[in-house]
Amino acid sequence: MVKKISNLREKLQSLVKTYKNAYMQGAVADYIPALAEVNPKMLGVCVATIDGKITGAGDYQQPFSIQSISKIFALVMAMERLGDSLWQRVNMEPSGQPFNSIIQLEWEKGIPRNPVINAGALLVSDVLTSHFCASKLAFLTFLRSLADSDAIKIDNHVYQSELSHGNRNAALAYLMKSFGNIESEIPDLLSHYFTQCSIKMSCQQLAQSLLFLANKGVNPRSNKLICSPKDTHRINAILSTSGMYDQSGEFAFSVGLPAKSGVGGGVVAIVPNYGVICSWSPPLNKFGNSVAGVNLVADIAQELGLSIYH
Amino acid sequence: MVKKISNLREKLQSLVKTYKNAYMQGAVADYIPALAEVNPKMLGVCVATIDGKITGAGDYQQPFSIQSISKIFALVMAMERLGDSLWQRVNMEPSGQPFNSIIQLEWEKGIPRNPVINAGALLVSDVLTSHFCASKLAFLTFLRSLADSDAIKIDNHVYQSELSHGNRNAALAYLMKSFGNIESEIPDLLSHYFTQCSIKMSCQQLAQSLLFLANKGVNPRSNKLICSPKDTHRINAILSTSGMYDQSGEFAFSVGLPAKSGVGGGVVAIVPNYGVICSWSPPLNKFGNSVAGVNLVADIAQELGLSIYH
Amino acid sequence: MVKKISNLREKLQSLVKTYKNAYMQGAVADYIPALAEVNPKMLGVCVATIDGKITGAGDYQQPFSIQSISKIFALVMAMERLGDSLWQRVNMEPSGQPFNSIIQLEWEKGIPRNPVINAGALLVSDVLTSHFCASKLAFLTFLRSLADSDAIKIDNHVYQSELSHGNRNAALAYLMKSFGNIESEIPDLLSHYFTQCSIKMSCQQLAQSLLFLANKGVNPRSNKLICSPKDTHRINAILSTSGMYDQSGEFAFSVGLPAKSGVGGGVVAIVPNYGVICSWSPPLNKFGNSVAGVNLVADIAQELGLSIYH
Amino acid sequence: MVKKISNLREKLQSLVKTYKNAYMQGAVADYIPALAEVNPKMLGVCVATIDGKITGAGDYQQPFSIQSISKIFALVMAMERLGDSLWQRVNMEPSGQPFNSIIQLEWEKGIPRNPVINAGALLVSDVLTSHFCASKLAFLTFLRSLADSDAIKIDNHVYQSELSHGNRNAALAYLMKSFGNIESEIPDLLSHYFTQCSIKMSCQQLAQSLLFLANKGVNPRSNKLICSPKDTHRINAILSTSGMYDQSGEFAFSVGLPAKSGVGGGVVAIVPNYGVICSWSPPLNKFGNSVAGVNLVADIAQELGLSIYH
Repeated sequence: MVKKISNLREKLQSLVKTYKNAYMQGAVADYIPALAEVNPKMLGVCVATIDGKITGAGDYQQPFSIQSISKIFALVMAMERLGDSLWQRVNMEPSGQPFNSIIQLEWEKGIPRNPVINAGALLVSDVLTSHFCASKLAFLTFLRSLADSDAIKIDNHVYQSELSHGNRNAALAYLMKSFGNIESEIPDLLSHYFTQCSIKMSCQQLAQSLLFLANKGVNPRSNKLICSPKDTHRINAILSTSGMYDQSGEFAFSVGLPAKSGVGGGVVAIVPNYGVICSWSPPLNKFGNSVAGVNLVADIAQELGLSIYH
Repeated sequence: MVKKISNLREKLQSLVKTYKNAYMQGAVADYIPALAEVNPKMLGVCVATIDGKITGAGDYQQPFSIQSISKIFALVMAMERLGDSLWQRVNMEPSGQPFNSIIQLEWEKGIPRNPVINAGALLVSDVLTSHFCASKLAFLTFLRSLADSDAIKIDNHVYQSELSHGNRNAALAYLMKSFGNIESEIPDLLSHYFTQCSIKMSCQQLAQSLLFLANKGVNPRSNKLICSPKDTHRINAILSTSGMYDQSGEFAFSVGLPAKSGVGGGVVAIVPNYGVICSWSPPLNKFGNSVAGVNLVADIAQELGLSIYH
Repeated sequence: MVKKISNLREKLQSLVKTYKNAYMQGAVADYIPALAEVNPKMLGVCVATIDGKITGAGDYQQPFSIQSISKIFALVMAMERLGDSLWQRVNMEPSGQPFNSIIQLEWEKGIPRNPVINAGALLVSDVLTSHFCASKLAFLTFLRSLADSDAIKIDNHVYQSELSHGNRNAALAYLMKSFGNIESEIPDLLSHYFTQCSIKMSCQQLAQSLLFLANKGVNPRSNKLICSPKDTHRINAILSTSGMYDQSGEFAFSVGLPAKSGVGGGVVAIVPNYGVICSWSPPLNKFGNSVAGVNLVADIAQELGLSIYH
Repeated sequence: MVKKISNLREKLQSLVKTYKNAYMQGAVADYIPALAEVNPKMLGVCVATIDGKITGAGDYQQPFSIQSISKIFALVMAMERLGDSLWQRVNMEPSGQPFNSIIQLEWEKGIPRNPVINAGALLVSDVLTSHFCASKLAFLTFLRSLADSDAIKIDNHVYQSELSHGNRNAALAYLMKSFGNIESEIPDLLSHYFTQCSIKMSCQQLAQSLLFLANKGVNPRSNKLICSPKDTHRINAILSTSGMYDQSGEFAFSVGLPAKSGVGGGVVAIVPNYGVICSWSPPLNKFGNSVAGVNLVADIAQELGLSIYH
């Protein structure tokens, strides 16, 4: 169903030109000072396909702060480690609330609505912190192996900045702990969470690392099973209903791909049986999604006839 | 990607046997007295494919109250009539709330989160009531044409019962009107809404009527364009994120098809480029979805390898 | 404990001068068009004491729309008619929400938090509508008898305007009916409610009519028991915790008297064992309370050493 | 207006007998293990008057955990230290929510509704922690001076138990910090808060310590001004609208005195110009108020004709 495009590279380069000035329509995340230091004009996009092709344009090889995109990798690790019992501690429903809302967490008695809003990601961090003896190292090792690159690093400056501006995440974590849904000590859990958010990867590295989600769980480069076909299905379902914060419905409506964004300006979209698109542009819209990043993915999906809903 | 099954009819018959006693795990909707009168043991399922095949088992030719499944047809009519301006009056985000919640409607200043929760469906009814000179007739005519059957009727007993137990829907409608988001007189709007909910159709009729959503907007039997490919995409997206009430995320997670349920016990699921599954069993789970209906669709999807997320 | 002031009239006249321009700090209620037609510069104040003295200044004999001040009289009638069973249908807790909020009503399953927010007043209207054969007439008769004046009238222009802009109140009423907490037909109940809100009385008439609340339930002019000492206590308690909308706490904190305001710009304050203060100035603050009205009452209470909290 | 009772002691003794078995209607607070260890049959009551009389019955000289009653003393200290700027950081409105709710705190952007719900008391603790060099010692010294007794102590066992079960309070504090409304480090603030909650005092000590609130701010024993008449008024107003958790309206309605309860089972009620009543019985009702404690205060108020609302 995917249209073949002989000149994908030219197409991506043309799109990068089109959105060169889109950065002016958004605002770089500034609630964490270190994130505000990034150059808002950075713009990149990369398409990795399960047959091994990598096509990119713009700053697609420039590492950036992956932020909430890390939630996908953490979820994969927690699903593998806990099995189905994970879903007794976190739900899989869209939230209908801003990503950092504490109201719903109180209503639902400490059970986060899904693993990709902040409360749910903190719960996943709790699983990793309490089930791995060195969860940060395990996480970094997992990413390096997926991206096949030892160059992937934690940005310590961003990490420190997150840590000193993490009061709302601490509130979410303590509230879950008051409901008995957290096992670790909160400072350990937060340290893990901010570490995984502070990792830097490029569009190319992200797109390649996530190919297993477009390939029924198998990393097409290594031929290794990263997660079961069933869990791959589940992750794509969650990303489809909840991956783009409180703009997830609109993204499904107008683009139609499982996707996840991060406040660092990255957007990844999974195209089952085809590949992964990753775009990056730091300025965000009011939902916390990259303005140009969303537009780039939408245009590529449109151009290639990619969508799971038709 | 759909697995071929030579003996689909036997498979469906076997599933109907499997779920013969599942009715005991749910409760027939009783907030509308007339709905409570239905025989809880009724159980049917039908698969209609875009190549014209109809396969059914159990009570699949028995008409039942379509209730909220009518929201799909009403949405198609409103989208056709209003075009994109519809989306200024109703959003397309999952709600994260029970289907009849009034809280979120107040928060969002009278703009319903999506057109398939009650508030949104009432908004769509307002569009039909104020843009068609005889909206009930137009609606019935549309359904009869889609199902190619003049036998489709309104159940007047259910209609009267809905009307006299419709206070919460009246509250939702008046609240939207207080925000200036309703044009019709509320009694007219409610009369239209309860009329469309009170229509009776069988699994077979529903499955056939919705084939256009699996076929890029074209009714495969008449070859007529019912809605544009773009709007077909949008409707399937909304059904995927929000069609199964506050169990939509779990349905995506475990089944993976655009779907809609009604408190009459019907469930329809769209399989793009393949067909439509419709099941029926009156007893509902706590989310308002048919217990056996959801299970039947899940098993068929599993058996045939149907899902949009892998 | 009340300080004697020989020249109360001069004091009131001086205060009326002081607040002559306070109307510019607020905005006349405009959600009901007929209310927006009032002259914003009107300003009056009256003190009636249980020993029979009436002292006023400014436009204190000019009738104005009593609006929510009518809730006190309706409550007295409903308490008398239903006895303690009233408190199974409405609570007596402060709401912590705007006066017309529908959110809390859903949370509390159709039981209003107290009888002086809109939901509670609609519930009281239901009691009157269903327990009096001609509730509007009974209400008007009660007021005329309390004020000893047959000149008290309903403003039909305001009534019609309320009726055609009453969608939010209709939503509240239908929501309560959906929870089984309303007996009347909603249009009857709303008609009664908007009638009682549309009555016009002057500061003097209001102050005199409410003297029984400062006198253990006895109207000092007629010596008739209007409500029992126990119910008088209860009404004063409710007015103290909830009478000034979502500014009730601040009013207790800075003034310290049981009080009730209306969006017509009136404010009444009860001084147990002394009398009643009533002020009027149409422009409202963000809570829906008269800017100058609140200031006038505060200054008089300060001047005379009136407060129940010291 | 207070009725004289020659035999107050006999009256109190008789009431203690009456409520001997009331402990069976409630449940001792058990969310903090150390609190659950108290003997549920303890029952005491004491009336201290501004003319120096102390009358008690039952276990009125037995120290118990004062818990939230400490919020009054902390508020007095913070008002004295910060002056009116305190009210920019905490509101004075009733909350209409359970005492430990985090929902409202999010709505109101980190500004607690009043200083006697948990969020507000944590804010007050922040003021003390950041404005006193040794806030715990200062607090204890203040209480010892008010009660004229060096025997008042912190129960270290309760303190440790609170500290290890304080996750919800930590969540509230971190949420306020995320809104920029907290100056101290959260662990310091919590340590202060749990310390003040863990102080043990008897009914007699509490009643005597709070006499200044019944005496326009002056401690009648030492003749020292503890807080200004204006601030005394304000505190009594806050206790009247919000002191008894989400039962404050009902307490005003049926008793009519400024009051505060603690989950240790204590209740204090201020009678302006007369004195203070303090009762104690550990088992609590669903609002977190002592069952027998509330009844004892209500009966004494009734017997002596005490209420501020008539």
